Amino acid sequence: MIIYEAQTEVRERLEAERAAGRRGAMVGTSGGTHEGHLSLVHRAKQECDHVAVFWNSALKLEWAPGAVLSYTRDMERDAALFEAAGVDLFYVPLRHDLCRRLSATFIAMPGMVAHLDGMPEGANMELLVTMVLTLLNIAGPCTTYFGEKDWQQLVMFQRMAEDLRLPSRVLGCPMLREPDGVAFSSRNTKLSAEQRAAAPTLYRGLYAAAEAIKAGERDAKVVTDLVKDLLRPVSSPDYVVAVEADTLRPLDTLTGEVRLLASATTPLVDNIGVTVPA
Amino acid sequence: MIIYEAQTEVRERLEAERAAGRRGAMVGTSGGTHEGHLSLVHRAKQECDHVAVFWNSALKLEWAPGAVLSYTRDMERDAALFEAAGVDLFYVPLRHDLCRRLSATFIAMPGMVAHLDGMPEGANMELLVTMVLTLLNIAGPCTTYFGEKDWQQLVMFQRMAEDLRLPSRVLGCPMLREPDGVAFSSRNTKLSAEQRAAAPTLYRGLYAAAEAIKAGERDAKVVTDLVKDLLRPVSSPDYVVAVEADTLRPLDTLTGEVRLLASATTPLVDNIGVTVPA
Repeated sequence: MIIYEAQTEVRERLEAERAAGRRGAMVGTSGGTHEGHLSLVHRAKQECDHVAVFWNSALKLEWAPGAVLSYTRDMERDAALFEAAGVDLFYVPLRHDLCRRLSATFIAMPGMVAHLDGMPEGANMELLVTMVLTLLNIAGPCTTYFGEKDWQQLVMFQRMAEDLRLPSRVLGCPMLREPDGVAFSSRNTKLSAEQRAAAPTLYRGLYAAAEAIKAGERDAKVVTDLVKDLLRPVSSPDYVVAVEADTLRPLDTLTGEVRLLASATTPLVDNIGVTVPA
Repeated sequence: MIIYEAQTEVRERLEAERAAGRRGAMVGTSGGTHEGHLSLVHRAKQECDHVAVFWNSALKLEWAPGAVLSYTRDMERDAALFEAAGVDLFYVPLRHDLCRRLSATFIAMPGMVAHLDGMPEGANMELLVTMVLTLLNIAGPCTTYFGEKDWQQLVMFQRMAEDLRLPSRVLGCPMLREPDGVAFSSRNTKLSAEQRAAAPTLYRGLYAAAEAIKAGERDAKVVTDLVKDLLRPVSSPDYVVAVEADTLRPLDTLTGEVRLLASATTPLVDNIGVTVPA
């Protein structure tokens, strides 16, 4: 695994790999790498020939011109995990060598962001999409993998790639769960013992709701209330909503491809998909 | 010259050209092709190995799913001009075969668009930038050429490409002028005889202003008033402004790389660059 700090070198290396006929994959991380990230790497290695991991530091740096950061212990820890997993290239944008000035260009997805009203995910979403687009432009044509745990961002990245006719594909991977059902997340380490004990309720609530839909329930409010009722004794529901899976449009009547999104004991998030029979 | 109507075929052809080691160029047109467009083609042929012309019909169609348009007489006329100029590929997106739904993704450049306040160019600028980004994503890494006549859009396209780390370069080409100094534009055909007779005043006014700056004038208002005074007897100035050339920021004191932008007898636009001595 080669570690790159400079943009021009990464771009050239990945161009060379493609020129040699190798299918490229890109996986992003913001640190705190866990089994979930590694499952993305494993899938990338199965489907592609060259796997690059990009450190998504952009939002923190805001691509500040001339900024030079230090290689941190966090990065060292993550690098070791990625090397062991067979990653070919690890790009940590420590030197913003091509950045002469702060960015004046942003992605706007107003229609979809409106569906994130009331969710913490909404606040930075367009900046996040802008950053992923920028990283994909550095990576060049590739397949990029994201976990389904953060459903909203996955759908928005996919829509952005489709709308802008990107030469890259954005694929979602099923989330990994601990044995008690709690989805892997770098946020799990921040939970108190009490919060962690209550965490499985989130998945159990979503699962129960999915079963209710399969049993015939079509009223979105009945289903989301079911989840909230299950959550309330042990945690505070942040939001529970049933949406159209590929547009994030909130539903009143459940039909087609539905995604149930929930957040509780902030910052835990989880979701489950249900195909409503015609 | 091969004419393409479908996106996947264009993308594949241009990928093949690059794989064969040919440097690609892209020039856009919205129809009404004239000497100005052809000068972009000539420069592209000098600097690159393969020249593609893309018809920018996107804004009219708004990428409507399933839309099928007819090849018009306008396109036939332009195709003949491009063929004669040695263009290799002419892409007219008549069949939006990869467009499943209307776009939900747009470019926003709020800081720079704010500088276009009061100019007609401001209204659709971000949609235009979004469209150019999309066409560049279809074209793949290339050099794309725009005339300097529409200075604001040129600067915004360049900034977008820099900010988003596009693998393509956006180059501006000096505008071509009629013998009496009037910049080539598809709009010129829409002028009445009287308006066409008055048109050279726009360039003469900008040229006089540039000379004043070279002679030592540093007050932007004095210089823009000079242009307006020269214009008023024969046409109605729409706007005259002195800006920082690569940011479009309006200047009060003239310094560095300055661009004087003017529009009169709408829809004529013109501009001139001045490097203010240190």
